[in-house]
Amino acid sequence: MSTPILTSLQNPMVKKWRLLNKSRAERIAQGLFIAEGEHMTQEAIQNKSASMLLVAESAREKFAHLLNTGISVQVLADHVFASLCETKSPQGILALCSYPAQITLEKLGHRIVCLNGVQDPGNVGTILRTMDAAGFTGLLIDGNTADPYSPKVLRATMGSIFRIPVFQTKQLSQTLDVLQQNDFEILAGDLMGKPFFNKRERKENTCIIIGNEGAGISPEIKEKATLRLKIPMMGGAESLNAAVAAAIMMYDDVRARQDG
Amino acid sequence: MSTPILTSLQNPMVKKWRLLNKSRAERIAQGLFIAEGEHMTQEAIQNKSASMLLVAESAREKFAHLLNTGISVQVLADHVFASLCETKSPQGILALCSYPAQITLEKLGHRIVCLNGVQDPGNVGTILRTMDAAGFTGLLIDGNTADPYSPKVLRATMGSIFRIPVFQTKQLSQTLDVLQQNDFEILAGDLMGKPFFNKRERKENTCIIIGNEGAGISPEIKEKATLRLKIPMMGGAESLNAAVAAAIMMYDDVRARQDG
Repeated sequence: MSTPILTSLQNPMVKKWRLLNKSRAERIAQGLFIAEGEHMTQEAIQNKSASMLLVAESAREKFAHLLNTGISVQVLADHVFASLCETKSPQGILALCSYPAQITLEKLGHRIVCLNGVQDPGNVGTILRTMDAAGFTGLLIDGNTADPYSPKVLRATMGSIFRIPVFQTKQLSQTLDVLQQNDFEILAGDLMGKPFFNKRERKENTCIIIGNEGAGISPEIKEKATLRLKIPMMGGAESLNAAVAAAIMMYDDVRARQDG
Repeated sequence: MSTPILTSLQNPMVKKWRLLNKSRAERIAQGLFIAEGEHMTQEAIQNKSASMLLVAESAREKFAHLLNTGISVQVLADHVFASLCETKSPQGILALCSYPAQITLEKLGHRIVCLNGVQDPGNVGTILRTMDAAGFTGLLIDGNTADPYSPKVLRATMGSIFRIPVFQTKQLSQTLDVLQQNDFEILAGDLMGKPFFNKRERKENTCIIIGNEGAGISPEIKEKATLRLKIPMMGGAESLNAAVAAAIMMYDDVRARQDG
């Protein structure tokens, strides 16, 4: 480690990095996001997303195994390191990661989840984690969905963010038209829809739409669904949590493809 | 409303109520918990759990429709009301609810979810909400699980807490023995288990065990499972969120019983 330890909260680089957790606009402008903690840093390194590692002075020995991977390392005084962290008791390591450039729609693959105004960061992160487990291949999000590269979403993904490509669009309706033209089954949960677990033909290409926590899927977007299904609701609950509904729909897809 | 408006943060009743959001011990000692906001207050009234309604002075008109149900009402100055709330922008109404007395195990019914050290309040609340939707009948929790009557859990239940009986025990292992003697299928997720979606006979009585977010199900409790199943993990994720795993297992039960 050739560079000196950064000891000032006023260091211009530190000040810039500190903005990364504040807003999506800053992350895009700087082309970076912060993956905090040992597990996320490991995932960032493994998935070749880490462009620089920052480590707290007192944590250098603990994380020595992560600091000799060829990725440049900067040591920060503990209080300076803590100023970059969202968690109350930082583990002492983080990765500065490249904010992915916009990809093409094709990169999302054949199993897509589409988020229409999902605003809770925990839900967005948990959906990415479940996609990764269920073998879903790409996430499509509109402008009203929580930024997948914000600190709370990242934490909930448990590293899956590095493996699932994300396509962001402000024209979700038109994007779904393109998927429809490409023979996607576009699924929407709907209290007036067909029974969810009834047997049906499965298309090779699937896109599951998940709506806003309060308002559900917007009418304009629901129009684009090729199939509306009602997940059984037997008790007194009026709705399911967005990440739970997404998981039930994704794993039904896993089961159906296994059966057939 | 005959009683005067409470205007002092130092009022002895206000000071007592303020402790209710702080600890499980206080809730048990006072025999009360706080259901905050319009939706939760409505659910508390409907499910006959509300013993008193507290309303902010400025919100009296807005919530007039909830204040004539025969349940006693106390008006508080806005700043006093806010001191009882966990949310940053309180809606202006809350219900003081009776903390349920310990029930018998039989009250849990035939479809049980068992939580073994589930510590994230959002997970516990989301599981209760999903149980309510999936027709599960009772929640069994050990001493290391987040208190279902704490503010964050309550919020995530969206009111389902009032419909699902909860049995708390410090002897979870023995309680599972009793379920086993009563012919329950006791399911545990296990990476070494049988394939989750394979066809199998279903018992009338089901108990799904969900383990701690980091450590999973403890070895002693996993011993008690009569069936270990591996939910398919196809991508890079190492595990599922606890509430997601619970939802997949519950809705597989719903599907199997629907199929016949």
